[in-house]
Amino acid sequence: MRLVVVGTGLMGGSFALAARAHGLFEEVLGVEPDPERRREALALALVDAMVDEVPEAADAVLLAGPSHTIAPWVSRLRDHSGIVFDTGSLKAAVLDAVRDRTQRVPARFVACHPLTGSERSGPQAADAGLFRDAQVIVTPTAETDAQALARVSDWWRAVGARVVTMEPERHDRVLAVTSHLPHLVAFAYLQQVTDEHLAHAAGGFRDFTRIGEADADVWVPIFELNRDALLAALGDLEADLTHMRRLLEQGDTAGLHALLAAAAARRRRFGTPRRVADDG
Amino acid sequence: MRLVVVGTGLMGGSFALAARAHGLFEEVLGVEPDPERRREALALALVDAMVDEVPEAADAVLLAGPSHTIAPWVSRLRDHSGIVFDTGSLKAAVLDAVRDRTQRVPARFVACHPLTGSERSGPQAADAGLFRDAQVIVTPTAETDAQALARVSDWWRAVGARVVTMEPERHDRVLAVTSHLPHLVAFAYLQQVTDEHLAHAAGGFRDFTRIGEADADVWVPIFELNRDALLAALGDLEADLTHMRRLLEQGDTAGLHALLAAAAARRRRFGTPRRVADDG
Repeated sequence: MRLVVVGTGLMGGSFALAARAHGLFEEVLGVEPDPERRREALALALVDAMVDEVPEAADAVLLAGPSHTIAPWVSRLRDHSGIVFDTGSLKAAVLDAVRDRTQRVPARFVACHPLTGSERSGPQAADAGLFRDAQVIVTPTAETDAQALARVSDWWRAVGARVVTMEPERHDRVLAVTSHLPHLVAFAYLQQVTDEHLAHAAGGFRDFTRIGEADADVWVPIFELNRDALLAALGDLEADLTHMRRLLEQGDTAGLHALLAAAAARRRRFGTPRRVADDG
Repeated sequence: MRLVVVGTGLMGGSFALAARAHGLFEEVLGVEPDPERRREALALALVDAMVDEVPEAADAVLLAGPSHTIAPWVSRLRDHSGIVFDTGSLKAAVLDAVRDRTQRVPARFVACHPLTGSERSGPQAADAGLFRDAQVIVTPTAETDAQALARVSDWWRAVGARVVTMEPERHDRVLAVTSHLPHLVAFAYLQQVTDEHLAHAAGGFRDFTRIGEADADVWVPIFELNRDALLAALGDLEADLTHMRRLLEQGDTAGLHALLAAAAARRRRFGTPRRVADDG
């Protein structure tokens, strides 16, 4: 069994390590356009060797580069005999882009999104335990080959993840709220933060802004590919901020109290996930 | 040495435990208006006994209730022989409120703000190690007695904190950005979050919204007392969100990239504080 990982950073490198640790593949090859990352991934033994192109003799190809690279790779590999799957943060947007390029989505492409990650990126952030107890959303379509879907799901379970099936459009709308909007807000908020602020910031600031350290190369494509759903979620937030501004300006203590209590009640329903990890 | 703690929740209860553990006071009395919290604080032995009023025979009085209760207590204790200090999240706003009530700020009142806490509250959240490695901002004025300031600073250092002196107005402006605005945003953001979102939320969501579980009884008074500085910081955020919306709508990839990279660079300057704790 041979796996090819395209993009040997946090997600691809972690799957390579985990897949090998669990005996899923005998050989793992890497495709990595960035020379620095290529060197690091080899030095860390995330892959056995680097190749310039995905070889035809491969049982599985994991696409783990930034979101805007997924659709071009799926199109390029449309006649490949192996199972192609990905770790991208967008599903409907990517499937639509594939359809735009090749009319149909290849049957052996299984779209996946592991809800795990880190504000860190690159081969050095790779972690064999990254997928343990993480939720992996798979978004099969009518075109998806059932056997390919079953095998990919088995691989995710083998590295410790829970597999959840979801409609691709719903995935992109839900993630716009749970992940993309918080990232956008953290990036926007940090624009007004100065060194004087940093000198007197504590744990609330630390946690609220942790995702603000995330990689621009990863996040700009996510924002652009999910623009409409993200702008809708941003619109809802702007309306809620305007509402809070009015309550404050009007001195509506009871209104503020009700709003804060509702927020806390909602947050308490979330509980604590089983593992400290980021969505992306 | 006798300490009286007014408000035996997270901050007051933690100082009571820490002060006793470090032998700063022989006796600790509590004043707690809430009957449920009174029972809990006694059951947890945060204080030796509860009293209805602050007795004249007390060397120190710690005011650890919600922010809007601090100024009334300072005024009430203006002729008390002990040193009065507090843990409130606002300094200039409280000093102004005291001046409105009693013309002058009592010389033996030392305004303090420990930048530590938790999204949890109440006596059960009390923790003898809460102030270890935390920054405590003290905001003395021209009226403050030097000996009272020195003693209060020594107490904070004895429980493990670093003491930083700051001008009260500057404190309230800085904290509006570092603490009050992130809380406001987390509360606003949670308004649009449904159970469907919670089912697919991960680590980014968890950290971004942790402070959204904070106590409305604590936070509504903070927002109201620091309204002007908070609305100014909110205005800056709204402008940055509008700017990001425009970049997205215009497809300005380079502009988005520069903004995200600036945010990440700012966040990296923060580093990791020595202890996991909240500002409030």
